[in-house]
Amino acid sequence: MPILPRCSDRWLVERVFKAIGPAPIRIVLGDREGISPPGVDQVATVIIHDRRILAGLMLDPEVAFSEAYAAGKIEIRGNLLRFLEVVYQAWPGGKVATAWYAKAFSKWTEWWQGDTLQGSRKNIYHHYDLGNDFYKLWLDRQMVYTCAYFPTPSATIEEAQEAKLDYVCRKVRLQAGESVVDAGCGWGALALHMARNYGVNVKAFNVSHEQILFARERARAEGLTGQVEFIEDDYRNIRGKFDAFLSVGMLEHVGLKHYAELGDVIHRAIGDSGRGLLHFIGRSHPVALSRWIRKRIFPGSYVPTLREAMATLEPWSYSVLDVENLRLHYARTLEHWLDRFERSQDEVAAKYGEWFARAWRLYLAGSVTAFKCNTMQLFQIVFAGAKCNPMYWTRAPLYADHSGQDQEQGHEWTHAMS
Amino acid sequence: MPILPRCSDRWLVERVFKAIGPAPIRIVLGDREGISPPGVDQVATVIIHDRRILAGLMLDPEVAFSEAYAAGKIEIRGNLLRFLEVVYQAWPGGKVATAWYAKAFSKWTEWWQGDTLQGSRKNIYHHYDLGNDFYKLWLDRQMVYTCAYFPTPSATIEEAQEAKLDYVCRKVRLQAGESVVDAGCGWGALALHMARNYGVNVKAFNVSHEQILFARERARAEGLTGQVEFIEDDYRNIRGKFDAFLSVGMLEHVGLKHYAELGDVIHRAIGDSGRGLLHFIGRSHPVALSRWIRKRIFPGSYVPTLREAMATLEPWSYSVLDVENLRLHYARTLEHWLDRFERSQDEVAAKYGEWFARAWRLYLAGSVTAFKCNTMQLFQIVFAGAKCNPMYWTRAPLYADHSGQDQEQGHEWTHAMS
Repeated sequence: MPILPRCSDRWLVERVFKAIGPAPIRIVLGDREGISPPGVDQVATVIIHDRRILAGLMLDPEVAFSEAYAAGKIEIRGNLLRFLEVVYQAWPGGKVATAWYAKAFSKWTEWWQGDTLQGSRKNIYHHYDLGNDFYKLWLDRQMVYTCAYFPTPSATIEEAQEAKLDYVCRKVRLQAGESVVDAGCGWGALALHMARNYGVNVKAFNVSHEQILFARERARAEGLTGQVEFIEDDYRNIRGKFDAFLSVGMLEHVGLKHYAELGDVIHRAIGDSGRGLLHFIGRSHPVALSRWIRKRIFPGSYVPTLREAMATLEPWSYSVLDVENLRLHYARTLEHWLDRFERSQDEVAAKYGEWFARAWRLYLAGSVTAFKCNTMQLFQIVFAGAKCNPMYWTRAPLYADHSGQDQEQGHEWTHAMS
Repeated sequence: MPILPRCSDRWLVERVFKAIGPAPIRIVLGDREGISPPGVDQVATVIIHDRRILAGLMLDPEVAFSEAYAAGKIEIRGNLLRFLEVVYQAWPGGKVATAWYAKAFSKWTEWWQGDTLQGSRKNIYHHYDLGNDFYKLWLDRQMVYTCAYFPTPSATIEEAQEAKLDYVCRKVRLQAGESVVDAGCGWGALALHMARNYGVNVKAFNVSHEQILFARERARAEGLTGQVEFIEDDYRNIRGKFDAFLSVGMLEHVGLKHYAELGDVIHRAIGDSGRGLLHFIGRSHPVALSRWIRKRIFPGSYVPTLREAMATLEPWSYSVLDVENLRLHYARTLEHWLDRFERSQDEVAAKYGEWFARAWRLYLAGSVTAFKCNTMQLFQIVFAGAKCNPMYWTRAPLYADHSGQDQEQGHEWTHAMS
């Protein structure tokens, strides 16, 4: 198996550390002694079972590591999350490079992975049609596969997803009888929450067949079919007039070059008088998503900066009322998912294979770390049409007891503006 | 005086309505009968004393109207604010034009008005060195010349400015002993509030000589000279290391092409570990500021969209934690200022001339309308360095009783992240 003389091991591992930064970890090649940066306590040990992956670790560490980990050629002894955290933290940083080739690569991948109607369908199938049973193993009871909102860090994932659904509704201040479009509705939890708790009429769109069937079944079971229509179609085919446009966790799949088009869809739906909310994973600077994630987990995804996301709202002069960054809530959400996933990992491995189970564990753990270490952001943007006033005089009602104060403040607000 | 035959009056006024839209107003040429769009109740009457301005009203309505109003050649009978509001609302709208000539004109003006160190000084003198006595006539007791924060719409301007100063401090969660830079500090109210109420050390920068002298005197009177240093210098000359960077009402004067430079200044000051707040007038789509405002009131100003403002934060990967749009608070602030200004208008006219008093009244009234009618936005952005965690787990503590809950929540938060 060794295709390189053993004397070069130290040199090779030193090159790996040069590529990934001086993380406090120990790297062990097969049965040899471990190597680590001097003067630090190691938080985990990386055991490399196949030395042929060393070249990859030097040139393209993220993809090489992830592929080898999923294939079982790399093993982590110690806490996987702590390991990922120290590696993220040691990663060479500094002012963000925006070299032409980085931009060109990003643009090329954009084009290559495609977000045409056909492309979007294919990409979404890849991830969301893995089977509802798979997601049931580790999501909350309501099957919400987006960042939760933890009123306190110790809330359960069930509480936090319920809190998120309601927080989103309060942010756009839904009123009974209004019509709402939910673009990219997942398994339908938000659409059902809006109909059930706010008395609004919802049209919910999603291209994932499995998710739509599941959502329809829930609407039937709850007797909400008169209020919620689940439509298996692309956001670009949204038709009709609405009071509010909500999209939670879809922008990541829309693709940078379609943001203006999404803006047109929003304007067709709510005009200048409506308001809306976009909830999406974001960045603090423009970088393509990890190539491994795009290759193995989320083909066709792009995670925009706030500046880039504005390409959706600016052409129609939508005014941004509120942006909140909930990245630490996503880290906490993912910790819950990872914990549940790990408890089901044997079941996943038996059903989908060892490779799949390991790859997904790494994806969830890597995501915890990315949100915790500030590599990823989670933005909620509330926006309003040029002829729509803000829904609140101050944001205080969002955090007040929701029984009465909200109405009172709203009253004062309406009076103040008349 | 009439240089056009009277038979053309109706035709001319109809052309004016075509240019400004069918606002429910009546236009009267000298002693002639008024003309107004059919079928609407007029909210105000415009009396044009000099028909030579009609051509201007057709071709460049905003500048021509403003100049003529300031010169007393146009008179408004009725409520000035209501008049401006209906004119704003009738203004031809639709999807925002981004024609090449609009962009080119905007860029040319940018360049022409300049924001070099020399240019900035000149532009700021123009506005802010009118004399402290002038601003004392109509600002609040603390001399805060930026958007206030009204906990309820009925708060006084004194209460609302105090509330704003404190809100800003809470948003970045100042801690006793920290060092803070205040870029563009006006008459020093925020710097003094931070030192007095939060026990921080402040370096406050401003190029306006009159304002700095005034601020220094206040620091002496309050015995805060050990904690606050007022420096008469440009933001580009900020030196030193700080925990937080605050700038309230300066970005409007920085100029689009200097945003990246401002980002570098911020990074030099707080690095990746600090946090900050930018408070500025914004837009929902990129448009140059009214040419009349730039000519007569605020030379060299540019009011950015959120997307444009990101050019400051994105290169250094600052993460946006929170954006709040307070445009209706600015409308309310301006209503207070206008009310006070009108009560002092005779005094202003006696001291600075009729032209000046009328021009400033129009500027304040037009600003009320611009914020009320969604033409202008007021953004507060809270941001944090790549190595700085959000200051709050949720935003609830910002709206809680500030005696104890804040600390408690913060405690839980720290615990949760450790």
